[in-house]
This record gives sequence, structure tokens and C-alpha cells, in this order.
Amino acid sequence: MTAHAYSEAETAALWRTLRERRDMRHFLPDPLPEGALERLVTAAHLAPSVGFMQPWRFLRITDSTLRAELHRGVEAERLATAAALPARNADFLQVKIEGIRECAELLVAVLMPEREKHLIGRRTLPEMDVASLGCAIQNMWLAARAEGIGLGWVSFFDPEAVAALLHLPPDAKPLAILCIGQVEAFYPRPMFEDAGWGKRLPLAGILFENRWPEGVGGTPTAYE
Amino acid sequence: MTAHAYSEAETAALWRTLRERRDMRHFLPDPLPEGALERLVTAAHLAPSVGFMQPWRFLRITDSTLRAELHRGVEAERLATAAALPARNADFLQVKIEGIRECAELLVAVLMPEREKHLIGRRTLPEMDVASLGCAIQNMWLAARAEGIGLGWVSFFDPEAVAALLHLPPDAKPLAILCIGQVEAFYPRPMFEDAGWGKRLPLAGILFENRWPEGVGGTPTAYE
Repeated sequence: MTAHAYSEAETAALWRTLRERRDMRHFLPDPLPEGALERLVTAAHLAPSVGFMQPWRFLRITDSTLRAELHRGVEAERLATAAALPARNADFLQVKIEGIRECAELLVAVLMPEREKHLIGRRTLPEMDVASLGCAIQNMWLAARAEGIGLGWVSFFDPEAVAALLHLPPDAKPLAILCIGQVEAFYPRPMFEDAGWGKRLPLAGILFENRWPEGVGGTPTAYE
Repeated sequence: MTAHAYSEAETAALWRTLRERRDMRHFLPDPLPEGALERLVTAAHLAPSVGFMQPWRFLRITDSTLRAELHRGVEAERLATAAALPARNADFLQVKIEGIRECAELLVAVLMPEREKHLIGRRTLPEMDVASLGCAIQNMWLAARAEGIGLGWVSFFDPEAVAALLHLPPDAKPLAILCIGQVEAFYPRPMFEDAGWGKRLPLAGILFENRWPEGVGGTPTAYE
């Protein structure tokens, strides 16, 4: 215990959220509760960002033609991915990877334009903007779980095509199509784990001391 | 309210954590509570990752020479950044950006090697590995806050130099030096905000509808 620790009940609530958050792809047709979308964006906006640059922008998709076009692009990329995994093509095609047409709300998360002006903490690591957007979406994911709302991060798309669809400035970049909605049930485990596409590594496989252990590679894939 | 919503108290605990988490740079000399480091890595490991690739690896730095060398590199990059911000050079140098020498525990977060084998959700967006690591560190940050432990993400370093120091495989990449330790107090606001380097954007500045609003740029910087 430290002087600034939260109560046991508060800490348990956080850990429950960390453990029960899932990437969701099945949604009920019901709308979100009143104010939920604004709360989720507020949670994202509480994230840390490198040099306080706040690189995250969210486009709420309310135009059904736009939603259909986003879905069409994701479906094309899903098939292109399957073609790139010949050893497990059919298995991959059985995994549901998105709920774009069913979810109550669809957001596209975008890295803002003019990021190159922001140098603090990015001079040698420009990808810190992506990391900051990751932190923001994780906040949103956790806030959604506490409200009983499912969120799925879809990254199967051609960023240039999505940028054109949404009229993004040339130096902005879409990084996530976020499917958000009520769900029948949260998956007990990640879908790719459940479907035998990978195992959660033991802690000893991700925590080392002082230097990289010789001969150790990355996480194995299920499709080599 | 949805059928799967947490209790009001649980939701409030999550929001307290989201609001009170800070990027910390001042640390007390006290060690972490028993088991805390393992809990923080466990929290990180509960994060989502694209295609379940789990790209995150953490190197715990227990060698004081290595810690000193990491600090030297960060200090050099801090000065290089100041030189790149001539209009606010002196102001920038007054902001404390890291607590590498004082913090109880120092971790380097690394993107694993052999990431190019992982295609699912990354064929067109290879930077999804960085986004996944961002999610993991955000989980760790929140778990630390609930325990009353401060965490600071330092990205002022030359990734190649740090990779060499830690004997990383050629295709692994360090993305964060994480300073972790007990603190006297958590900052009420982000340090860069407090020091007048930026303002938190209003929600209307980060949430748009269907398309990018014409003429809107990125977050202003304080040093143009």
C-alpha cells in the first residue's frame, strides 16, 4: 500500500474492467444510452499524449451510405488478408472481425493533420502520435466496458481510401474504425485466442532483465 | 444503463482513475510495494493487441550502469529537442521531463522482433503494433495510479542507441523508458498544460461528423 492508493473496492473495479474488456464484433441493434457517446469521447480525451499534442480526432459516422462504403472497404481488405494467409485461409475467413453494419455507433479515429509541427518527445520517435491514440482508444474501451457497451477496433482497411471518403486533409491518417454498441454478452476470452489463433504468453515471456535474452524471438503466429 | 453495466461505484472508480492518472517525473526514493511490478506488467498484458500478436516486451533495468547510460542518452535528446525549439528553448529546458535517476523501477518497453510475420489487421496498417503497445502502457498507467504509484513515459531517446545498449534483435524497437515509483503527490494537471504549453481542446474540437470540417488543422503548438 502507498499513501496515494485507492480503496480495495476501487482497485478491484479497475481490475475488473481491465480483465473484462474485449474487442467486440457482435452487437445488438439497441441504441446507446443517453450521453454515452460523449462520455466515451471524454474518456479518450483524458488520455496522455506526447508533448500534450492531443493528436486524436473522432469522426462520428451518421451517414448510412458512408457506413456502407466503409464496410465494403473493410470486406475487401479482409479478403486480401485471407489471400495473404494461404495456410489458414479458410480458418481466418470463419472468424468474425467486425460489426460495422450492426453496431449502434460507428466512429473513425484519425491522427490529426500538422503533426510534424509537434516535436516534443517525437523528434526521434515520430510514431508516438500513434501510441498516444492507442492510449486514448484504450481509455474509451474501458469506459465502454464499465457501461456495458461493446467496442471493436477494426484496422482492416486501406487508410488512403478511408481518408478520401472522409475528406481528410492530406497529412491526417485514419487508424481505427470503432464499432460501438450494446451486446448480448461479452466474450470470455479474445476471439483469436478462443479460435486457437494464439495463446496468451506467460509473464516470463514478456518481462526480461537488463538485456534481450539471447535466441528469443517474437510471439509465434498460427499461420506460418 | 445497459444490462452489462457495472455498479455506479465501480464506474466511478474507473473514472477516478482515468481522471487522476498523470505522467509523473518526480519520485520518492521508496521501493514499490511487494508484488507491484508484477501487477503492473500483468495489467499491461491484459491489453488488446492487433491479431492477438502481443507485441509488448518489458526490460526491467536493475543494472545501475545501464540506468546511468539511459539517462545520459535521454539528457542528450532533451538538449537536442531544446535546440530544435529556438523560440521557446529556455522555457522548454525548465520543464522536468523525466525521473530516470530517482524512480524505484525503470522499465524499457520494446516492440518485439519478427513483427512482420503478423499480418492480421496490419497488412495496410503496420503501425498497429505501436498502437497495441500504447494500449498496454495505458493499462499499466491506470493500474499504477490505483496503487498510488507514479509512472512516466519518456520518449526522448535515440531508439537505435537504446536498442544497442539492451542488445535488442535488429528488428525489435524500444518505444518507452518507463519511470515507476512512489510519489509525494500526483500533479493536478498535465505538466505541459500547467506550464502553459498547451490547452486541453474542447470536445467539439476533437469530435466531428461524417467528414473532416473544412479549414480545420491540428492542435496548435506553443513553439511555432
